[in-house]
Amino acid sequence: MDVSLLVCTTCRAGQPVLDGQPVAGARLHAALDGVAPPPGVRIIPVECLSACNSGSAIALSGPGRWSYVYGRMEIADVPEILQGAAAYAASTDGIVPWRDRVAIFRKRSIARIPPIG
Amino acid sequence: MDVSLLVCTTCRAGQPVLDGQPVAGARLHAALDGVAPPPGVRIIPVECLSACNSGSAIALSGPGRWSYVYGRMEIADVPEILQGAAAYAASTDGIVPWRDRVAIFRKRSIARIPPIG
Repeated sequence: MDVSLLVCTTCRAGQPVLDGQPVAGARLHAALDGVAPPPGVRIIPVECLSACNSGSAIALSGPGRWSYVYGRMEIADVPEILQGAAAYAASTDGIVPWRDRVAIFRKRSIARIPPIG
Repeated sequence: MDVSLLVCTTCRAGQPVLDGQPVAGARLHAALDGVAPPPGVRIIPVECLSACNSGSAIALSGPGRWSYVYGRMEIADVPEILQGAAAYAASTDGIVPWRDRVAIFRKRSIARIPPIG
């Protein structure tokens, strides 16, 4: 079953909100939505991941898997985000071996939650 | 179905590790495990919620519900943690109205993740 790459579209990432301008999270979502996702990954916009002090925030989740939340993501990180999401989708339980984890996920983890149930 | 109150037992909460002494997260889990949980709440120890900079960390999760991660929890917070977990268990989707949310959950949220699936 597919995993979800959740992208907070309301993250301001500490920047002022300008009239008519999308916030940082919306811009990150647009950038991610503009490329083909890795196999087995769905990109889903979410209004607020409650990680406002660490925006822009994203999360990875999937049935039977650990969920992970990452912060301080930027548009320049899109290729690495997709690479990290692909490794997550390829895992059985959401836990990607440390050596295979992309650097931005190693360094900007906010939290993880065990499989639900 | 029951919801899970996940308690990180490896959180050091910024304190030095002393030989033979349980770390802050293990002490918090012991305190929570020593009282009767609210109806519909299971207290589950977890090794590392990857929120090490915000320990002690706990999380609430359940099938079909939003998951929440909270940080900087202390033993003095145990009654309020249980009250907050009871409100979470009583909700249908994990979202407790703001006015009904305990203060420590309002102020010390680390992240939330939408229902998985």
